[in-house]
Amino acid sequence: MAERIPPTSVTGELPDGLIDAFWAYENALLTNDLEALDAAFAPGNATLRGDAGGLLVGHDRISSFRGARGGAPVRTITSIHVRVLSHEYALIVSENEPRSGGRGLVTQLWARHADAAGWVVESAQVAGAPAAMNTAIWRVLGNPLVAPTTSDGGALDGETVAVKDLFDVRGFAVGAGIPEYLSEAMPADANAPALAALLAAGASVRGIAQTDEFAYSIAGKNVHYGTPPNGAVPGAIPGGSSSGPASAVATGHASIALATDTAGSIRVPASYQGLWGLRTTHGAVDSAGLLPLAPSFDTVGWLTRSAPVLRAAAASTLDAESQQPVDAQFVISTELLFAADPAMQGALVDAVGRLEAAGLVGEVGVVDLGDTSGFFDAFRTVQGAEAWRQHGEWITSHPGVLASDVASRFETASTITDDAESSAREVLAAARTQLDEALAGRILLLPSTASTAPSLTADPGEIDAARAATLALTCFAGIGGYPALSVPLLEVEGAPAGLCLVGPRGSDLALIDLASTFIP
Amino acid sequence: MAERIPPTSVTGELPDGLIDAFWAYENALLTNDLEALDAAFAPGNATLRGDAGGLLVGHDRISSFRGARGGAPVRTITSIHVRVLSHEYALIVSENEPRSGGRGLVTQLWARHADAAGWVVESAQVAGAPAAMNTAIWRVLGNPLVAPTTSDGGALDGETVAVKDLFDVRGFAVGAGIPEYLSEAMPADANAPALAALLAAGASVRGIAQTDEFAYSIAGKNVHYGTPPNGAVPGAIPGGSSSGPASAVATGHASIALATDTAGSIRVPASYQGLWGLRTTHGAVDSAGLLPLAPSFDTVGWLTRSAPVLRAAAASTLDAESQQPVDAQFVISTELLFAADPAMQGALVDAVGRLEAAGLVGEVGVVDLGDTSGFFDAFRTVQGAEAWRQHGEWITSHPGVLASDVASRFETASTITDDAESSAREVLAAARTQLDEALAGRILLLPSTASTAPSLTADPGEIDAARAATLALTCFAGIGGYPALSVPLLEVEGAPAGLCLVGPRGSDLALIDLASTFIP
Repeated sequence: MAERIPPTSVTGELPDGLIDAFWAYENALLTNDLEALDAAFAPGNATLRGDAGGLLVGHDRISSFRGARGGAPVRTITSIHVRVLSHEYALIVSENEPRSGGRGLVTQLWARHADAAGWVVESAQVAGAPAAMNTAIWRVLGNPLVAPTTSDGGALDGETVAVKDLFDVRGFAVGAGIPEYLSEAMPADANAPALAALLAAGASVRGIAQTDEFAYSIAGKNVHYGTPPNGAVPGAIPGGSSSGPASAVATGHASIALATDTAGSIRVPASYQGLWGLRTTHGAVDSAGLLPLAPSFDTVGWLTRSAPVLRAAAASTLDAESQQPVDAQFVISTELLFAADPAMQGALVDAVGRLEAAGLVGEVGVVDLGDTSGFFDAFRTVQGAEAWRQHGEWITSHPGVLASDVASRFETASTITDDAESSAREVLAAARTQLDEALAGRILLLPSTASTAPSLTADPGEIDAARAATLALTCFAGIGGYPALSVPLLEVEGAPAGLCLVGPRGSDLALIDLASTFIP
Repeated sequence: MAERIPPTSVTGELPDGLIDAFWAYENALLTNDLEALDAAFAPGNATLRGDAGGLLVGHDRISSFRGARGGAPVRTITSIHVRVLSHEYALIVSENEPRSGGRGLVTQLWARHADAAGWVVESAQVAGAPAAMNTAIWRVLGNPLVAPTTSDGGALDGETVAVKDLFDVRGFAVGAGIPEYLSEAMPADANAPALAALLAAGASVRGIAQTDEFAYSIAGKNVHYGTPPNGAVPGAIPGGSSSGPASAVATGHASIALATDTAGSIRVPASYQGLWGLRTTHGAVDSAGLLPLAPSFDTVGWLTRSAPVLRAAAASTLDAESQQPVDAQFVISTELLFAADPAMQGALVDAVGRLEAAGLVGEVGVVDLGDTSGFFDAFRTVQGAEAWRQHGEWITSHPGVLASDVASRFETASTITDDAESSAREVLAAARTQLDEALAGRILLLPSTASTAPSLTADPGEIDAARAATLALTCFAGIGGYPALSVPLLEVEGAPAGLCLVGPRGSDLALIDLASTFIP
């Protein structure tokens, strides 16, 4: 039972039952009594509950959040300020001390409901004691962790970088999202060239951010460190595998995510969290000092909140071959459009219509990519074979370490035969030629992801279906070695999604310049 | 002007003027129009405003906070949920996006005041976008930053350490609260022994925490990194020089502060923030790998939220000579009691009375320490001479780097002649004998600080007076080389303060054991 203290201050006359309802709620929190907690919040769609993760609107959303949370931290109430507003309403502001230290604050609007058990909460804002750091986003943080290597005046002066935990940062080991891997790794002697380029342009490193295990997922969940928050959609998965760096940028902790994209690991979190994200032309950025997943498809790239910062990061890093001009001719593929869910199809068509109407994309044509039915399987086969070649030995010697979904992906990868791999490589070589010819230097517009971010509470089947549908879209850039830019231009029911521009190899910067005109 | 959006949801009928008042407040925030902001909050002592720093009660406290803050971050309102409660009251919950990224949430209770300009805020809870880390507390953070060197089962298993930025942490440079000093420092090859002892007992390092420049202050302000929050008193200084580690523990970011105390740098923040804090017997903890200030007085120690964790940290580190028993005979000195401010005198007398009544301290006697008039000056002279010997060369070659108060302290120190220093050393040697004889192995009870924590907005003269009065109390342990334990047992107008136990050399652990019985 919560230890009762008398109200610290009261204005107006305390109505019957209010204080009892307050303490009954505290007791329900202590015991995580979900039924009592649900009953303590007013029914209906107007009920509000907000905390650092965002604002939930409506009793049922609040209820499902609670079910997923699994208990609140134990806390002791240290002050209670009651403001009686009328016979039906009272505001209670209370302070508390969580057992783990620090201090929390809660504002509750209580209402007397004739049809409910009595006093219920119609609106609550809850602030727990802020943690030293969000360990689902970050593994190490500094002020800065690594200083710029140039003095003032670089193109990235003042920008802060969240480094995905796959890149060498001098003095730190690479963890790849796996504590056991980290514990065996040695500190890096030097910064990865992709990081050095940002530092040389004036950026500093804010910290090393979390990734899906070995970057072999696009969900953004990590069983060891937790799931980073989606900075745009409370209660949704962040997207991965560049989950930590993406969340760091979306929540304002850093301005540039230094990340990687093998099969969508930049585009997916960019789309799910409303960020700009660039997967670069394959080979355009030096991948030294980067823990590989599947070198035939691995690319370095960035996520940012704005186009200018993305452009500056790209321009500071890309080789000359990736700074080529491109014809501003845009096409869509009905096949790829239909691969997205209906709401995304609508959002894409609307957005393209608006861009056409604004004269920003000329007249968007329709491209026939030909028969692409074997492309995705071939991509997955080669990616899997390379991933197993890279990590199979370590995984085999560390049974039980990986999460079951990632483990089963590697398990499948381990069974790929040399014959299957070389057949797949032949398919991919032909596919690349086919795509090059079909696109003929034009820019393909498609949804960055097949849907908006699934809910954290979605069942694994739903998340897996979203994953498969999205990978069927994202694999095209991987197959062609094309740069792919996710632009935060779409919206479905309040959730962001990306419009993806896939351009010819070397058009990285040109894509950013074109898309910069899309958002006023 | 703030960009207006229509209300996202409304229950009840929107009353005249409410939405205009909401936007007028946003505009006042944008321009930091203090007069308009003051007028927007209801007058009187019942008005509430809470954020991550704590809850402020009363219009005038809110007003002075605002004056000290200097502007809120620029933000765009993204949703507005209005709940009309009556003709006089409405609740507005709004979401915003700060320009610097992330997301904020505000709950406001608006009231229509006949005698005011119309709608005013009677209560507000404000949540800004959480920063990646509190850079006033921390310089580097990790999950963990340094792992324990023992497997499960040590006495400090699961505890997390905030290391004051004076100790060597392998792979990191020591910054001593001064960015310029940090930029020239080399990473340490090994952990300081005081840190190694905690790691060997199972604790991990959470991070490296801020200090006053070269630890030569007890205020806890740092012009380079900002002032860490006082975890117990919103709007008060944290106390220093172990400000960062102390705030880290008070706010629940870590469970053990590894700190130093030369003239009060552990006892002062412990007292101001309601923590346990131990200054150890001089020489009882190996000071290798610690940047010195004044070696004749420098000691290592810890701050914690609980006695058992402090005891475990001390027992894991102290040499055998500091684990001696002590007679539970307590004394107070009326001279030292009167050196504290009247409210603290009252709090101390009350607390001693309660401890006597509970049979926890026997009958507390009164000790006559003799003529101590020259002690404090002699202490300051030797401390200054040693501090200048330690840092004078660096300070001379880096003009303008230190904050003015610390710089002027070093400036004064630079003028101390050899003669003055050796005279002072003679005074101190005699003082030590005098104190040893007067105390005769008994435990001296005194206030840890001369007052509770001054406000952040107190003028420099007031903070300096509090500093001088406190140092006149804290210097006795330094002169005697005695251990001094600050116990969070006093309270003055809701603010905590420490009861200090100064015991004979070597009684470190015994003091903790005795004081552990003081708090149920």
